[in-house]
Amino acid sequence: MNKKIGFIGLGRMGRNMVLNLLSKKYKVIVYNRDIEKVKEMEKEGAIGAYSLEELVNKLGKEKIIIMMITAGKPIDEVISGLSGFLSKGDILIDGGNSFYEDSVRRYELLNKKGINYLDMGTSGGLEGARNGACLTIGGEKNSFDKIEFLFRDLATKNGYAYLGDSGSGHFAKMIHNGIEYSLLESYAEGFELLAKSKYKFNYSDVSKVWSNGSVIRSWITELAERVFRKNPELKDIKGVIGGGETGSWAYNFAKKTGADADCLKHAIEKRKESEKKQSFGTKLIALLRNEFGGHEVKK
Amino acid sequence: MNKKIGFIGLGRMGRNMVLNLLSKKYKVIVYNRDIEKVKEMEKEGAIGAYSLEELVNKLGKEKIIIMMITAGKPIDEVISGLSGFLSKGDILIDGGNSFYEDSVRRYELLNKKGINYLDMGTSGGLEGARNGACLTIGGEKNSFDKIEFLFRDLATKNGYAYLGDSGSGHFAKMIHNGIEYSLLESYAEGFELLAKSKYKFNYSDVSKVWSNGSVIRSWITELAERVFRKNPELKDIKGVIGGGETGSWAYNFAKKTGADADCLKHAIEKRKESEKKQSFGTKLIALLRNEFGGHEVKK
Repeated sequence: MNKKIGFIGLGRMGRNMVLNLLSKKYKVIVYNRDIEKVKEMEKEGAIGAYSLEELVNKLGKEKIIIMMITAGKPIDEVISGLSGFLSKGDILIDGGNSFYEDSVRRYELLNKKGINYLDMGTSGGLEGARNGACLTIGGEKNSFDKIEFLFRDLATKNGYAYLGDSGSGHFAKMIHNGIEYSLLESYAEGFELLAKSKYKFNYSDVSKVWSNGSVIRSWITELAERVFRKNPELKDIKGVIGGGETGSWAYNFAKKTGADADCLKHAIEKRKESEKKQSFGTKLIALLRNEFGGHEVKK
Repeated sequence: MNKKIGFIGLGRMGRNMVLNLLSKKYKVIVYNRDIEKVKEMEKEGAIGAYSLEELVNKLGKEKIIIMMITAGKPIDEVISGLSGFLSKGDILIDGGNSFYEDSVRRYELLNKKGINYLDMGTSGGLEGARNGACLTIGGEKNSFDKIEFLFRDLATKNGYAYLGDSGSGHFAKMIHNGIEYSLLESYAEGFELLAKSKYKFNYSDVSKVWSNGSVIRSWITELAERVFRKNPELKDIKGVIGGGETGSWAYNFAKKTGADADCLKHAIEKRKESEKKQSFGTKLIALLRNEFGGHEVKK
Protein backbone atom coordinates (compact mmCIF):
# COMPACT_ATOMS: atom_id res chain seq x y z
CA MET A 1 0.00 0.00 0.00
CA ASN A 2 1.52 3.26 -1.24
CA LYS A 3 0.74 5.78 1.49
CA LYS A 4 2.53 8.52 -0.44
CA ILE A 5 0.13 10.93 -2.12
CA GLY A 6 0.62 13.96 -4.32
CA PHE A 7 -1.86 16.73 -3.60
CA ILE A 8 -2.45 19.73 -5.82
CA GLY A 9 -4.64 22.57 -4.60
CA LEU A 10 -4.62 23.83 -1.02
CA GLY A 11 -7.82 25.82 -0.84
CA ARG A 12 -10.27 25.34 2.01
CA MET A 13 -11.25 21.83 0.96
CA GLY A 14 -7.80 20.68 -0.18
CA ARG A 15 -6.11 21.89 2.96
CA ASN A 16 -8.51 19.95 5.16
CA MET A 17 -8.18 16.80 3.10
CA VAL A 18 -4.39 17.00 3.41
CA LEU A 19 -4.72 17.39 7.18
CA ASN A 20 -6.97 14.34 7.24
CA LEU A 21 -4.41 12.29 5.29
CA LEU A 22 -1.54 13.50 7.48
CA SER A 23 -3.46 12.42 10.57
CA LYS A 24 -3.65 8.97 8.98
CA LYS A 25 0.14 8.76 8.53
CA TYR A 26 0.23 9.46 4.83
CA LYS A 27 3.25 11.14 3.28
CA VAL A 28 1.60 14.00 1.41
CA ILE A 29 3.55 15.97 -1.17
CA VAL A 30 1.68 19.24 -1.65
CA TYR A 31 1.71 21.80 -4.42
CA ASN A 32 -0.23 25.01 -4.85
CA ARG A 33 0.17 27.92 -7.24
CA ASP A 34 0.20 30.32 -4.31
CA ILE A 35 3.41 29.24 -2.61
CA GLU A 36 2.46 30.61 0.82
CA LYS A 37 -0.07 27.81 1.18
CA VAL A 38 2.61 25.21 0.50
CA LYS A 39 4.68 26.70 3.30
CA GLU A 40 1.70 26.62 5.66
CA MET A 41 1.15 22.95 4.98
CA GLU A 42 4.82 22.17 5.45
CA LYS A 43 4.35 23.41 9.01
CA GLU A 44 1.55 20.88 9.39
CA GLY A 45 3.79 18.01 8.33
CA ALA A 46 3.26 17.89 4.57
CA ILE A 47 6.21 17.74 2.16
CA GLY A 48 6.24 20.88 0.05
CA ALA A 49 6.77 21.00 -3.68
CA TYR A 50 7.30 24.29 -5.48
CA SER A 51 6.58 23.09 -8.98
CA LEU A 52 4.61 20.27 -10.58
CA GLU A 53 7.92 18.69 -11.60
CA GLU A 54 9.18 18.75 -8.04
CA LEU A 55 5.92 17.21 -6.85
CA VAL A 56 6.22 14.36 -9.32
CA ASN A 57 9.90 13.80 -8.54
CA LYS A 58 9.14 13.47 -4.85
CA LEU A 59 6.61 10.71 -5.54
CA GLY A 60 7.84 7.18 -6.20
CA LYS A 61 6.57 4.83 -8.87
CA GLU A 62 2.85 4.15 -9.24
CA LYS A 63 2.10 7.72 -8.42
CA ILE A 64 -1.23 8.79 -6.95
CA ILE A 65 -2.10 12.46 -7.31
CA ILE A 66 -5.25 14.23 -6.14
CA MET A 67 -6.28 17.57 -7.60
CA MET A 68 -8.58 19.82 -5.54
CA ILE A 69 -8.62 22.89 -7.73
CA THR A 70 -11.12 25.16 -9.44
CA ALA A 71 -13.09 23.47 -12.20
CA GLY A 72 -12.47 24.39 -15.82
CA LYS A 73 -9.28 25.72 -17.35
CA PRO A 74 -7.10 25.33 -14.22
CA ILE A 75 -7.62 21.56 -14.35
CA ASP A 76 -6.58 21.38 -18.00
CA GLU A 77 -3.52 23.49 -17.26
CA VAL A 78 -2.41 21.26 -14.41
CA ILE A 79 -3.01 18.14 -16.49
CA SER A 80 -0.95 19.50 -19.35
CA GLY A 81 1.75 20.57 -16.88
CA LEU A 82 1.75 17.14 -15.26
CA SER A 83 1.32 14.75 -18.11
CA GLY A 84 4.90 14.90 -19.37
CA PHE A 85 6.04 13.64 -15.97
CA LEU A 86 3.48 10.88 -15.55
CA SER A 87 3.87 7.33 -16.77
CA LYS A 88 1.76 4.28 -17.39
CA GLY A 89 -0.04 3.07 -14.28
CA ASP A 90 -0.03 6.39 -12.48
CA ILE A 91 -3.39 7.51 -11.13
CA LEU A 92 -4.66 11.07 -11.29
CA ILE A 93 -7.80 12.01 -9.37
CA ASP A 94 -9.94 15.11 -9.85
CA GLY A 95 -11.73 15.69 -6.55
CA GLY A 96 -13.21 19.06 -7.52
CA ASN A 97 -16.51 20.12 -9.05
CA SER A 98 -15.65 19.48 -12.70
CA PHE A 99 -18.33 19.12 -15.33
CA TYR A 100 -18.63 15.38 -15.94
CA GLU A 101 -18.19 15.62 -19.70
CA ASP A 102 -14.88 17.43 -19.15
CA SER A 103 -13.83 14.57 -16.91
CA VAL A 104 -14.67 12.03 -19.61
CA ARG A 105 -12.63 14.04 -22.15
CA ARG A 106 -9.64 14.18 -19.77
CA TYR A 107 -10.00 10.49 -18.99
CA GLU A 108 -9.83 9.65 -22.69
CA LEU A 109 -6.85 11.94 -23.25
CA LEU A 110 -4.84 10.41 -20.42
CA ASN A 111 -6.04 6.89 -21.10
CA LYS A 112 -4.13 6.96 -24.42
CA LYS A 113 -0.93 7.29 -22.42
CA GLY A 114 -1.91 4.58 -19.97
CA ILE A 115 -2.48 7.10 -17.21
CA ASN A 116 -5.52 6.33 -15.06
CA TYR A 117 -7.95 9.14 -14.43
CA LEU A 118 -10.64 9.03 -11.78
CA ASP A 119 -13.36 11.61 -11.21
CA MET A 120 -14.27 12.00 -7.59
CA GLY A 121 -17.22 14.05 -6.40
CA THR A 122 -16.40 15.35 -2.93
CA SER A 123 -19.11 16.38 -0.48
CA GLY A 124 -19.40 17.11 3.21
CA GLY A 125 -18.00 20.61 3.45
CA LEU A 126 -14.94 21.55 5.43
CA GLU A 127 -15.74 19.23 8.32
CA GLY A 128 -16.14 16.34 5.93
CA ALA A 129 -12.85 17.16 4.23
CA ARG A 130 -11.11 17.20 7.59
CA ASN A 131 -12.80 14.28 9.34
CA GLY A 132 -14.31 12.13 6.62
CA ALA A 133 -15.99 13.20 3.40
CA CYS A 134 -18.56 11.68 1.05
CA LEU A 135 -16.92 10.56 -2.20
CA THR A 136 -18.55 9.37 -5.43
CA ILE A 137 -16.00 7.91 -7.81
CA GLY A 138 -16.08 7.22 -11.54
CA GLY A 139 -13.51 5.78 -13.92
CA GLU A 140 -11.91 2.39 -14.38
CA LYS A 141 -12.85 -0.11 -11.71
CA ASN A 142 -9.29 -1.50 -11.64
CA SER A 143 -7.82 1.86 -10.73
CA PHE A 144 -10.46 2.35 -8.05
CA ASP A 145 -9.77 -1.09 -6.59
CA LYS A 146 -6.02 -0.46 -6.53
CA ILE A 147 -6.34 2.64 -4.33
CA GLU A 148 -9.58 1.93 -2.51
CA PHE A 149 -7.65 2.30 0.77
CA LEU A 150 -7.17 5.99 -0.04
CA PHE A 151 -10.90 6.60 -0.51
CA ARG A 152 -11.62 4.70 2.68
CA ASP A 153 -9.22 6.96 4.53
CA LEU A 154 -10.54 10.18 3.01
CA ALA A 155 -14.20 9.28 3.58
CA THR A 156 -16.38 8.89 6.60
CA LYS A 157 -17.66 5.39 7.35
CA ASN A 158 -19.60 4.08 4.30
CA GLY A 159 -18.92 7.46 2.71
CA TYR A 160 -17.36 6.41 -0.57
CA ALA A 161 -18.65 4.45 -3.54
CA TYR A 162 -17.49 3.46 -6.97
CA LEU A 163 -20.37 4.48 -9.22
CA GLY A 164 -19.30 3.42 -12.71
CA ASP A 165 -17.63 4.61 -15.89
CA SER A 166 -15.62 7.77 -16.23
CA GLY A 167 -17.70 10.83 -15.41
CA SER A 168 -20.20 9.05 -13.17
CA GLY A 169 -18.59 10.37 -9.99
CA HIS A 170 -18.82 13.96 -11.15
CA PHE A 171 -22.25 13.40 -12.68
CA ALA A 172 -23.51 12.22 -9.30
CA LYS A 173 -21.86 15.22 -7.62
CA MET A 174 -23.59 17.56 -10.08
CA ILE A 175 -26.94 16.00 -9.15
CA HIS A 176 -26.00 16.12 -5.47
CA ASN A 177 -25.38 19.84 -5.80
CA GLY A 178 -28.67 20.34 -7.60
CA ILE A 179 -30.44 18.55 -4.74
CA GLU A 180 -28.46 20.67 -2.28
CA TYR A 181 -29.71 23.88 -3.91
CA SER A 182 -33.30 22.65 -3.67
CA LEU A 183 -32.97 21.43 -0.10
CA LEU A 184 -31.52 24.74 1.05
CA GLU A 185 -34.36 26.57 -0.67
CA SER A 186 -36.93 24.20 0.86
CA TYR A 187 -35.73 24.87 4.38
CA ALA A 188 -35.36 28.59 3.65
CA GLU A 189 -39.00 28.77 2.57
CA GLY A 190 -40.02 26.99 5.77
CA PHE A 191 -38.09 29.23 8.12
CA GLU A 192 -39.32 32.29 6.26
CA LEU A 193 -42.88 31.15 6.97
CA LEU A 194 -42.05 30.68 10.65
CA ALA A 195 -40.68 34.21 10.62
CA LYS A 196 -43.92 35.55 9.08
CA SER A 197 -46.11 34.01 11.75
CA LYS A 198 -47.56 35.68 14.81
CA TYR A 199 -45.65 33.30 17.04
CA LYS A 200 -42.22 34.21 18.39
CA PHE A 201 -40.35 31.11 17.40
CA ASN A 202 -36.89 30.47 18.71
CA TYR A 203 -35.41 29.25 15.42
CA SER A 204 -32.49 27.41 16.97
CA ASP A 205 -34.92 25.50 19.22
CA VAL A 206 -37.03 24.65 16.19
CA SER A 207 -33.96 23.55 14.20
CA LYS A 208 -32.82 21.45 17.11
CA VAL A 209 -36.11 19.67 17.66
CA TRP A 210 -36.46 19.06 13.91
CA SER A 211 -32.94 17.57 13.95
CA ASN A 212 -34.08 14.92 16.39
CA GLY A 213 -36.58 12.36 15.25
CA SER A 214 -38.48 14.34 12.61
CA VAL A 215 -39.07 13.25 9.01
CA ILE A 216 -37.15 16.34 7.83
CA ARG A 217 -34.09 15.79 9.99
CA SER A 218 -30.85 16.27 8.10
CA TRP A 219 -27.39 17.68 8.36
CA ILE A 220 -28.88 20.97 7.18
CA THR A 221 -31.24 21.15 10.20
CA GLU A 222 -28.21 20.60 12.43
CA LEU A 223 -26.31 23.37 10.64
CA ALA A 224 -29.39 25.61 10.94
CA GLU A 225 -29.33 25.13 14.68
CA ARG A 226 -25.72 26.35 14.77
CA VAL A 227 -26.50 29.28 12.48
CA PHE A 228 -29.44 30.47 14.61
CA ARG A 229 -27.54 29.89 17.84
CA LYS A 230 -24.86 32.32 16.65
CA ASN A 231 -27.26 34.80 15.02
CA PRO A 232 -30.82 34.26 16.28
CA GLU A 233 -32.50 36.82 13.99
CA LEU A 234 -30.01 36.67 11.08
CA LYS A 235 -29.00 40.27 11.65
CA ASP A 236 -26.21 42.36 10.08
CA ILE A 237 -25.66 40.20 7.04
CA LYS A 238 -26.72 40.69 3.48
CA GLY A 239 -28.19 37.41 2.29
CA VAL A 240 -26.50 37.31 -1.09
CA ILE A 241 -26.08 33.64 -2.03
CA GLY A 242 -22.91 32.79 -3.90
CA GLY A 243 -22.03 29.47 -5.44
CA GLY A 244 -20.78 27.94 -8.63
CA GLU A 245 -22.45 26.53 -11.67
CA THR A 246 -23.05 22.92 -10.70
CA GLY A 247 -26.74 23.49 -9.96
CA SER A 248 -27.22 25.10 -13.36
CA TRP A 249 -25.46 22.20 -15.04
CA ALA A 250 -27.92 19.84 -13.37
CA TYR A 251 -30.82 22.00 -14.52
CA ASN A 252 -29.50 22.13 -18.08
CA PHE A 253 -29.29 18.36 -18.05
CA ALA A 254 -32.92 18.25 -16.89
CA LYS A 255 -34.00 20.52 -19.74
CA LYS A 256 -32.06 18.46 -22.28
CA THR A 257 -33.63 15.21 -21.12
CA GLY A 258 -37.12 16.62 -20.57
CA ALA A 259 -37.05 15.81 -16.85
CA ASP A 260 -39.03 17.87 -14.40
CA ALA A 261 -36.82 19.97 -12.12
CA ASP A 262 -38.93 22.95 -11.13
CA CYS A 263 -37.75 23.02 -7.51
CA LEU A 264 -34.18 23.23 -8.74
CA LYS A 265 -35.13 25.84 -11.33
CA HIS A 266 -36.67 27.98 -8.62
CA ALA A 267 -33.74 27.50 -6.26
CA ILE A 268 -31.35 28.70 -8.98
CA GLU A 269 -33.51 31.73 -9.75
CA LYS A 270 -33.62 32.67 -6.06
CA ARG A 271 -29.84 32.54 -5.90
CA LYS A 272 -29.51 34.86 -8.86
CA GLU A 273 -32.18 37.22 -7.51
CA SER A 274 -30.43 37.33 -4.15
CA GLU A 275 -27.83 39.65 -5.69
CA LYS A 276 -30.54 42.32 -5.73
CA LYS A 277 -33.21 41.19 -3.32
CA GLN A 278 -32.55 39.52 -0.02
CA SER A 279 -34.88 37.97 2.53
CA PHE A 280 -34.84 35.95 5.73
CA GLY A 281 -34.63 32.87 3.51
CA THR A 282 -31.70 34.02 1.38
CA LYS A 283 -29.85 35.09 4.53
CA LEU A 284 -30.34 31.65 5.99
CA ILE A 285 -28.99 29.99 2.84
CA ALA A 286 -25.94 32.26 2.79
CA LEU A 287 -25.23 31.43 6.43
CA LEU A 288 -25.80 27.71 5.95
CA ARG A 289 -23.35 27.69 3.03
CA ASN A 290 -20.89 29.52 5.21
CA GLU A 291 -21.44 27.01 8.00
CA PHE A 292 -20.63 23.94 5.92
CA GLY A 293 -18.32 25.29 3.25
CA GLY A 294 -16.83 28.45 4.69
CA HIS A 295 -18.37 30.36 1.78
CA GLU A 296 -18.26 34.13 2.16
CA VAL A 297 -21.18 35.99 3.74
CA LYS A 298 -21.56 39.66 2.80
CA LYS A 299 -22.12 42.06 5.66
CA MET B 1 -45.79 11.79 38.29
CA ASN B 2 -49.04 10.47 36.85
CA LYS B 3 -48.01 7.66 34.52
CA LYS B 4 -51.63 6.98 33.64
CA ILE B 5 -52.57 8.29 30.20
CA GLY B 6 -55.76 8.27 28.23
CA PHE B 7 -55.22 7.66 24.53
CA ILE B 8 -57.83 8.22 21.84
CA GLY B 9 -57.14 7.07 18.30
CA LEU B 10 -55.40 3.80 17.47
CA GLY B 11 -54.42 4.30 13.86
CA ARG B 12 -50.88 3.58 12.65
CA MET B 13 -49.33 6.45 14.58
CA GLY B 14 -51.48 6.17 17.69
CA ARG B 15 -50.96 2.45 18.02
CA ASN B 16 -47.18 2.86 17.92
CA MET B 17 -47.22 5.69 20.43
CA VAL B 18 -49.26 3.55 22.82
CA LEU B 19 -46.75 0.70 22.40
CA ASN B 20 -43.95 3.16 23.17
CA LEU B 21 -45.72 4.30 26.34
CA LEU B 22 -46.48 0.73 27.42
CA SER B 23 -42.79 -0.15 27.02
CA LYS B 24 -42.07 2.72 29.42
CA LYS B 25 -44.41 1.32 32.07
CA TYR B 26 -47.29 3.73 31.54
CA LYS B 27 -50.83 2.65 32.25
CA VAL B 28 -52.52 3.52 28.99
CA ILE B 29 -56.31 3.58 28.76
CA VAL B 30 -57.16 3.35 25.09
CA TYR B 31 -60.26 4.21 23.11
CA ASN B 32 -61.02 3.98 19.42
CA ARG B 33 -64.25 4.25 17.47
CA ASP B 34 -63.47 0.94 15.78
CA ILE B 35 -63.61 -1.41 18.75
CA GLU B 36 -61.44 -4.10 17.18
CA LYS B 37 -58.43 -1.86 17.61
CA VAL B 38 -59.14 -1.46 21.29
CA LYS B 39 -59.18 -5.23 21.64
CA GLU B 40 -55.86 -5.52 19.79
CA MET B 41 -54.22 -3.04 22.11
CA GLU B 42 -55.62 -4.82 25.17
CA LYS B 43 -53.59 -7.80 24.02
CA GLU B 44 -50.53 -5.57 24.04
CA GLY B 45 -51.10 -4.56 27.65
CA ALA B 46 -53.25 -1.45 27.29
CA ILE B 47 -56.46 -0.99 29.30
CA GLY B 48 -59.39 -0.89 26.92
CA ALA B 49 -62.24 1.58 27.11
CA TYR B 50 -65.34 1.16 24.96
CA SER B 51 -66.68 4.67 25.29
CA LEU B 52 -65.28 8.10 26.05
CA GLU B 53 -67.05 8.00 29.38
CA GLU B 54 -65.42 4.70 30.27
CA LEU B 55 -62.03 6.10 29.27
CA VAL B 56 -62.48 9.11 31.54
CA ASN B 57 -63.77 7.00 34.42
CA LYS B 58 -60.72 4.79 34.26
CA LEU B 59 -58.40 7.78 34.59
CA GLY B 60 -57.84 9.31 38.02
CA LYS B 61 -57.75 12.99 38.89
CA GLU B 62 -55.56 15.39 36.87
CA LYS B 63 -56.32 13.50 33.73
CA ILE B 64 -53.99 13.52 30.77
CA ILE B 65 -55.50 12.50 27.45
CA ILE B 66 -53.81 12.34 24.06
CA MET B 67 -55.81 12.38 20.84
CA MET B 68 -54.23 10.92 17.70
CA ILE B 69 -57.15 11.17 15.33
CA THR B 70 -57.98 12.60 11.93
CA ALA B 71 -57.88 16.38 11.79
CA GLY B 72 -61.09 18.36 11.43
CA LYS B 73 -64.56 17.34 12.53
CA PRO B 74 -63.52 14.13 14.35
CA ILE B 75 -61.51 16.20 16.81
CA ASP B 76 -64.42 18.52 17.54
CA GLU B 77 -66.68 15.51 18.04
CA VAL B 78 -64.33 13.89 20.51
CA ILE B 79 -63.86 17.16 22.37
CA SER B 80 -67.60 17.67 22.66
CA GLY B 81 -67.97 14.03 23.74
CA LEU B 82 -65.24 14.41 26.33
CA SER B 83 -65.73 17.85 27.73
CA GLY B 84 -68.67 16.98 29.96
CA PHE B 85 -66.45 14.49 31.77
CA LEU B 86 -63.38 16.68 32.12
CA SER B 87 -62.71 19.03 34.98
CA LYS B 88 -60.45 21.92 35.83
CA GLY B 89 -56.78 21.05 35.60
CA ASP B 90 -57.19 18.16 33.20
CA ILE B 91 -54.94 18.26 30.17
CA LEU B 92 -56.05 17.34 26.66
CA ILE B 93 -53.43 17.00 23.92
CA ASP B 94 -54.04 16.95 20.17
CA GLY B 95 -51.10 15.11 18.62
CA GLY B 96 -52.54 14.99 15.11
CA ASN B 97 -52.23 17.23 12.08
CA SER B 98 -54.83 19.81 13.04
CA PHE B 99 -54.90 23.24 11.45
CA TYR B 100 -53.34 25.58 14.00
CA GLU B 101 -56.22 28.04 14.00
CA ASP B 102 -58.59 25.21 14.90
CA SER B 103 -56.30 24.35 17.79
CA VAL B 104 -56.40 27.93 19.04
CA ARG B 105 -60.22 27.90 18.84
CA ARG B 106 -60.38 24.63 20.79
CA TYR B 107 -57.89 25.93 23.32
CA GLU B 108 -60.04 28.98 23.95
CA LEU B 109 -63.20 26.91 24.22
CA LEU B 110 -61.72 24.53 26.79
CA ASN B 111 -59.79 27.24 28.58
CA LYS B 112 -63.12 28.76 29.69
CA LYS B 113 -63.76 25.58 31.65
CA GLY B 114 -60.25 25.49 33.09
CA ILE B 115 -59.29 22.53 30.91
CA ASN B 116 -55.77 22.76 29.51
CA TYR B 117 -55.35 22.16 25.82
CA LEU B 118 -51.98 21.53 24.18
CA ASP B 119 -51.32 21.24 20.44
CA MET B 120 -48.58 18.80 19.64
CA GLY B 121 -47.09 18.39 16.17
CA THR B 122 -45.90 14.81 15.85
CA SER B 123 -43.24 13.83 13.33
CA GLY B 124 -40.95 10.89 12.70
CA GLY B 125 -43.25 8.41 11.03
CA LEU B 126 -44.14 5.03 12.44
CA GLU B 127 -40.63 4.33 13.71
CA GLY B 128 -40.60 7.64 15.53
CA ALA B 129 -43.99 6.95 17.06
CA ARG B 130 -42.78 3.57 18.29
CA ASN B 131 -39.22 4.44 19.37
CA GLY B 132 -39.12 8.18 19.89
CA ALA B 133 -40.85 10.91 17.91
CA CYS B 134 -40.24 14.58 17.26
CA LEU B 135 -42.78 16.74 19.09
CA THR B 136 -43.46 20.47 18.79
CA ILE B 137 -45.76 21.67 21.53
CA GLY B 138 -47.87 24.81 21.88
CA GLY B 139 -50.20 26.01 24.63
CA GLU B 140 -49.78 27.13 28.19
CA LYS B 141 -46.26 26.78 29.47
CA ASN B 142 -47.55 25.66 32.88
CA SER B 143 -49.40 22.72 31.39
CA PHE B 144 -46.36 21.76 29.36
CA ASP B 145 -44.12 21.92 32.41
CA LYS B 146 -46.51 19.79 34.43
CA ILE B 147 -46.37 16.89 31.99
CA GLU B 148 -42.96 17.38 30.40
CA PHE B 149 -42.05 13.84 31.51
CA LEU B 150 -44.64 12.52 29.07
CA PHE B 151 -43.16 14.39 26.10
CA ARG B 152 -39.69 13.24 27.10
CA ASP B 153 -40.91 9.65 27.09
CA LEU B 154 -42.74 9.94 23.77
CA ALA B 155 -39.85 11.71 22.01
CA THR B 156 -36.41 10.68 20.91
CA LYS B 157 -33.49 12.36 22.69
CA ASN B 158 -33.79 16.17 22.28
CA GLY B 159 -36.86 15.47 20.18
CA TYR B 160 -39.45 17.65 21.91
CA ALA B 161 -39.75 21.37 22.44
CA TYR B 162 -42.22 23.82 23.86
CA LEU B 163 -42.57 26.43 21.12
CA GLY B 164 -44.98 28.99 22.52
CA ASP B 165 -48.63 30.01 22.68
CA SER B 166 -51.52 27.83 21.68
CA GLY B 167 -51.29 26.80 18.03
CA SER B 168 -47.52 27.17 17.73
CA GLY B 169 -46.95 23.42 17.92
CA HIS B 170 -49.33 22.74 15.07
CA PHE B 171 -48.16 25.79 13.15
CA ALA B 172 -44.61 24.42 13.26
CA LYS B 173 -45.87 21.01 12.19
CA MET B 174 -47.68 22.60 9.24
CA ILE B 175 -44.42 24.24 8.18
CA HIS B 176 -42.53 20.99 8.83
CA ASN B 177 -44.91 19.23 6.46
CA GLY B 178 -44.47 21.92 3.83
CA ILE B 179 -40.71 21.47 4.06
CA GLU B 180 -41.22 17.71 3.88
CA TYR B 181 -43.16 18.05 0.61
CA SER B 182 -40.37 20.17 -0.86
CA LEU B 183 -37.58 17.90 0.35
CA LEU B 184 -39.24 14.83 -1.11
CA GLU B 185 -39.67 16.64 -4.42
CA SER B 186 -36.04 17.84 -4.32
CA TYR B 187 -34.68 14.32 -3.93
CA ALA B 188 -37.18 12.97 -6.46
CA GLU B 189 -35.93 15.46 -9.06
CA GLY B 190 -32.36 14.41 -8.35
CA PHE B 191 -32.97 10.68 -8.65
CA GLU B 192 -35.00 11.25 -11.79
CA LEU B 193 -31.96 12.96 -13.31
CA LEU B 194 -29.74 10.05 -12.31
CA ALA B 195 -32.23 7.76 -14.03
CA LYS B 196 -32.09 9.87 -17.21
CA SER B 197 -28.31 9.65 -17.47
CA LYS B 198 -26.26 7.31 -19.61
CA TYR B 199 -24.69 5.82 -16.49
CA LYS B 200 -26.15 2.74 -14.85
CA PHE B 201 -26.39 4.00 -11.32
CA ASN B 202 -27.17 1.66 -8.49
CA TYR B 203 -29.61 3.93 -6.69
CA SER B 204 -29.33 2.22 -3.32
CA ASP B 205 -25.54 2.61 -3.46
CA VAL B 206 -25.95 6.29 -4.32
CA SER B 207 -28.49 6.78 -1.51
CA LYS B 208 -26.17 5.02 0.90
CA VAL B 209 -23.09 7.03 0.03
CA TRP B 210 -25.11 10.27 0.16
CA SER B 211 -26.34 9.22 3.61
CA ASN B 212 -22.78 9.17 4.89
CA GLY B 213 -20.89 12.43 5.09
CA SER B 214 -22.54 14.41 2.29
CA VAL B 215 -24.08 17.85 2.60
CA ILE B 216 -27.46 16.39 1.55
CA ARG B 217 -27.48 13.56 4.07
CA SER B 218 -30.80 13.16 5.82
CA TRP B 219 -33.28 10.64 7.09
CA ILE B 220 -34.81 10.72 3.62
CA THR B 221 -31.55 9.54 1.98
CA GLU B 222 -31.51 6.67 4.48
CA LEU B 223 -35.11 5.81 3.64
CA ALA B 224 -34.26 6.03 -0.08
CA GLU B 225 -31.55 3.44 0.42
CA ARG B 226 -34.12 1.07 1.93
CA VAL B 227 -36.64 1.80 -0.83
CA PHE B 228 -34.13 1.10 -3.61
CA ARG B 229 -32.77 -1.97 -1.83
CA LYS B 230 -36.25 -3.49 -1.89
CA ASN B 231 -37.19 -2.26 -5.37
CA PRO B 232 -34.06 -1.22 -7.34
CA GLU B 233 -35.91 0.12 -10.41
CA LEU B 234 -39.16 1.13 -8.71
CA LYS B 235 -41.12 -1.42 -10.70
CA ASP B 236 -44.74 -2.56 -10.43
CA ILE B 237 -46.03 0.43 -8.53
CA LYS B 238 -48.06 3.35 -9.68
CA GLY B 239 -46.43 6.46 -8.28
CA VAL B 240 -49.59 8.21 -7.15
CA ILE B 241 -48.68 10.40 -4.19
CA GLY B 242 -51.31 10.64 -1.47
CA GLY B 243 -51.24 12.89 1.52
CA GLY B 244 -53.31 15.38 3.42
CA GLU B 245 -53.73 19.09 3.28
CA THR B 246 -50.98 20.32 5.59
CA GLY B 247 -48.67 21.30 2.73
CA SER B 248 -51.45 23.30 1.11
CA TRP B 249 -52.17 25.05 4.39
CA ALA B 250 -48.53 26.08 4.55
CA TYR B 251 -48.70 27.34 0.98
CA ASN B 252 -51.89 29.28 1.68
CA PHE B 253 -50.16 30.91 4.62
CA ALA B 254 -47.28 31.86 2.30
CA LYS B 255 -49.69 33.44 -0.19
CA LYS B 256 -51.47 35.33 2.57
CA THR B 257 -48.24 36.74 3.97
CA GLY B 258 -46.57 37.35 0.62
CA ALA B 259 -43.75 34.93 1.37
CA ASP B 260 -41.98 33.12 -1.43
CA ALA B 261 -42.74 29.40 -1.46
CA ASP B 262 -42.32 28.30 -5.05
CA CYS B 263 -40.61 25.01 -4.22
CA LEU B 264 -43.55 24.11 -2.02
CA LYS B 265 -45.99 25.29 -4.66
CA HIS B 266 -44.36 23.05 -7.22
CA ALA B 267 -44.20 20.08 -4.85
CA ILE B 268 -47.96 20.39 -4.19
CA GLU B 269 -48.71 20.62 -7.92
CA LYS B 270 -46.64 17.50 -8.60
CA ARG B 271 -48.60 15.61 -5.97
CA LYS B 272 -51.89 16.59 -7.55
CA GLU B 273 -50.63 15.78 -11.05
CA SER B 274 -49.43 12.37 -9.88
CA GLU B 275 -53.05 11.21 -9.90
CA LYS B 276 -52.85 11.31 -13.70
CA LYS B 277 -49.17 11.31 -14.58
CA GLN B 278 -46.51 9.31 -12.80
CA SER B 279 -42.74 9.27 -13.14
CA PHE B 280 -39.66 7.79 -11.52
CA GLY B 281 -39.76 10.76 -9.17
CA THR B 282 -43.40 10.40 -8.12
CA LYS B 283 -42.87 6.67 -7.60
CA LEU B 284 -39.94 7.42 -5.32
CA ILE B 285 -42.01 9.86 -3.27
CA ALA B 286 -44.87 7.36 -2.94
CA LEU B 287 -42.44 4.69 -1.74
CA LEU B 288 -40.64 7.06 0.64
CA ARG B 289 -43.97 8.04 2.19
CA ASN B 290 -44.79 4.37 2.53
CA GLU B 291 -41.39 3.76 4.13
CA PHE B 292 -41.75 6.33 6.88
CA GLY B 293 -45.49 6.56 7.34
CA GLY B 294 -46.90 3.32 6.02
CA HIS B 295 -48.91 5.36 3.51
CA GLU B 296 -50.53 3.29 0.80
CA VAL B 297 -48.72 2.66 -2.50
CA LYS B 298 -50.93 1.85 -5.49
CA LYS B 299 -49.84 -1.13 -7.56
